[in-house]
Amino acid sequence: MTRPAPDAVKTVACIGTGTIGAGWAAHFLARGYRVTLWDPAPDFEARAAQVIDTAWPSLEALGLADGASRDNAAMAKSLEAAVADAGFVKESAPERLDIKRALLADIDRVTPPGIVIASSTSGFAMTEMAVDCATPERLVVGHPFNPPYLIPIVEVVPGEKTHPDVIAWTVDFYRAAGKHPLRLDNELPGFLANRLQEAVWREALHMVAAGEATVEQIDAAIVQGPGLRWAMMGPFMTYHLGGGPGGMAYCFDHFGPTWEAPWTRLDAPPLTDALRDASVLGCADLQGDAGFAELARARDDRLVGILKALRAADAADGSVL
Amino acid sequence: MTRPAPDAVKTVACIGTGTIGAGWAAHFLARGYRVTLWDPAPDFEARAAQVIDTAWPSLEALGLADGASRDNAAMAKSLEAAVADAGFVKESAPERLDIKRALLADIDRVTPPGIVIASSTSGFAMTEMAVDCATPERLVVGHPFNPPYLIPIVEVVPGEKTHPDVIAWTVDFYRAAGKHPLRLDNELPGFLANRLQEAVWREALHMVAAGEATVEQIDAAIVQGPGLRWAMMGPFMTYHLGGGPGGMAYCFDHFGPTWEAPWTRLDAPPLTDALRDASVLGCADLQGDAGFAELARARDDRLVGILKALRAADAADGSVL
Repeated sequence: MTRPAPDAVKTVACIGTGTIGAGWAAHFLARGYRVTLWDPAPDFEARAAQVIDTAWPSLEALGLADGASRDNAAMAKSLEAAVADAGFVKESAPERLDIKRALLADIDRVTPPGIVIASSTSGFAMTEMAVDCATPERLVVGHPFNPPYLIPIVEVVPGEKTHPDVIAWTVDFYRAAGKHPLRLDNELPGFLANRLQEAVWREALHMVAAGEATVEQIDAAIVQGPGLRWAMMGPFMTYHLGGGPGGMAYCFDHFGPTWEAPWTRLDAPPLTDALRDASVLGCADLQGDAGFAELARARDDRLVGILKALRAADAADGSVL
Repeated sequence: MTRPAPDAVKTVACIGTGTIGAGWAAHFLARGYRVTLWDPAPDFEARAAQVIDTAWPSLEALGLADGASRDNAAMAKSLEAAVADAGFVKESAPERLDIKRALLADIDRVTPPGIVIASSTSGFAMTEMAVDCATPERLVVGHPFNPPYLIPIVEVVPGEKTHPDVIAWTVDFYRAAGKHPLRLDNELPGFLANRLQEAVWREALHMVAAGEATVEQIDAAIVQGPGLRWAMMGPFMTYHLGGGPGGMAYCFDHFGPTWEAPWTRLDAPPLTDALRDASVLGCADLQGDAGFAELARARDDRLVGILKALRAADAADGSVL
């Protein structure tokens, strides 16, 4: 067993170096790690370097870790060479089950014992990906969002054979590496964030298909509306604050009927007392000691900051987005 | 007919002065309008003033219009007095159809002819709200998001009897007043932005009800993940850019199977050629002349700005959110 402590990892191997894999490499470089990259594509070095070059100014703007350098990246000649000294291995192959299965089995075979191997898959369960691995107990899903060097979340999802120590280690490692790990207990299809994202996306596709709205209207509806809030508050806190001082309890009692209205193609679940309690208590936990006025102030301060940041970017690049 | 030009409105009447109505008043004050407020509640003046006081520092931080002043607000003694000199009337009563119907009929009766009356309803159709109005042709929905003084979008939705000139005038007026009007052609339940928001919300409620995720996990999944992107890119541009240089066409061809996977409780529509074309062409329109690398740069610049703004707010208030 050669597994280092979660905060003692020095080298990360990024296997598969497309947009996601090389984006991960950029993130780890910025946090001060040495990074070895490998991909079966013959010209992977140039493409991976380009992704890192693109990411680097943003990472510098956010602040590099002590000792972080673009020069700590090494393009490996082989998979074996890439993982030889790694304290953590990140797989980011194309999203095809046969490719993932074969590559993860290869990685598992050549990576020193005990070193954790995490897959960037956006939807496959580790249980189905690790079927050809000799030591599936050290494999786990670590699902990022694009671009992985800027979006904090990583969904950590164990397979049936993933060892509990590996799950805990992975969460601690991602946190030490400056990410926001979200540990899920089961292999839900689409995990968590993609399920929520897909719900919006599918309603949007339905609306375009039915001629109810255009692509431009849908994107504007999000960007100029609820999307600005979602950068700082999830759906629960959005409603909790929208309910005024009565919060989520008020929302259940007063907005409940609209949640059952045909406002989307997805029906709401029955609004049981248990669901109400779980929602109200969950929001109370998130609220903590802050009062309603303080929460509203915090929301407005963040909205002002986001709006000013977007204005500044529009002024700098002539509103490319 | 006393209707002024859309950019010549001097006074706005805000009828119903809760969180939304008084929030609208704050917005109009910041944009340099005189605002008259009225609400049937006996103590409305103090509550409305508090909402405006809370909003004002944010509006100052974003920049006030020439001549804008907190002192341009007047609490009216009656509905008649509130609308007497108004160039535009904003109704923001509680979300109950009987209340809206009665209040809109009263407003319509006492407002000078031709002046546009817009409702803040988040879901009722103007056709069903204006049944008791003598001149329904000048009534229209103008649905904001909370807080209306910071979130730009206003969904402009006509009723069956709304005059086309009134729709066009309302869109022009909101734009002149610094909002982002989104004109919808038909009275779709939940309009547009709420349909998308409700899809996320209902999937979230289902997940809590089924024990698949906690309130805390769901909110973190959005805020630390896709929510950061939705502040600047809607679902179409998010996928378009996520597809790399191949954009939305690549997404349809390669991610299509996952859109049909059970990643949410909402099934996707059939991925027909017509839907593919509408999506691809819509994204091409939104992309304009910018290339893929330029779009990615624009996305990253905005993400860096948003992340820095959120960090600054966390540092200032100790991470209230």
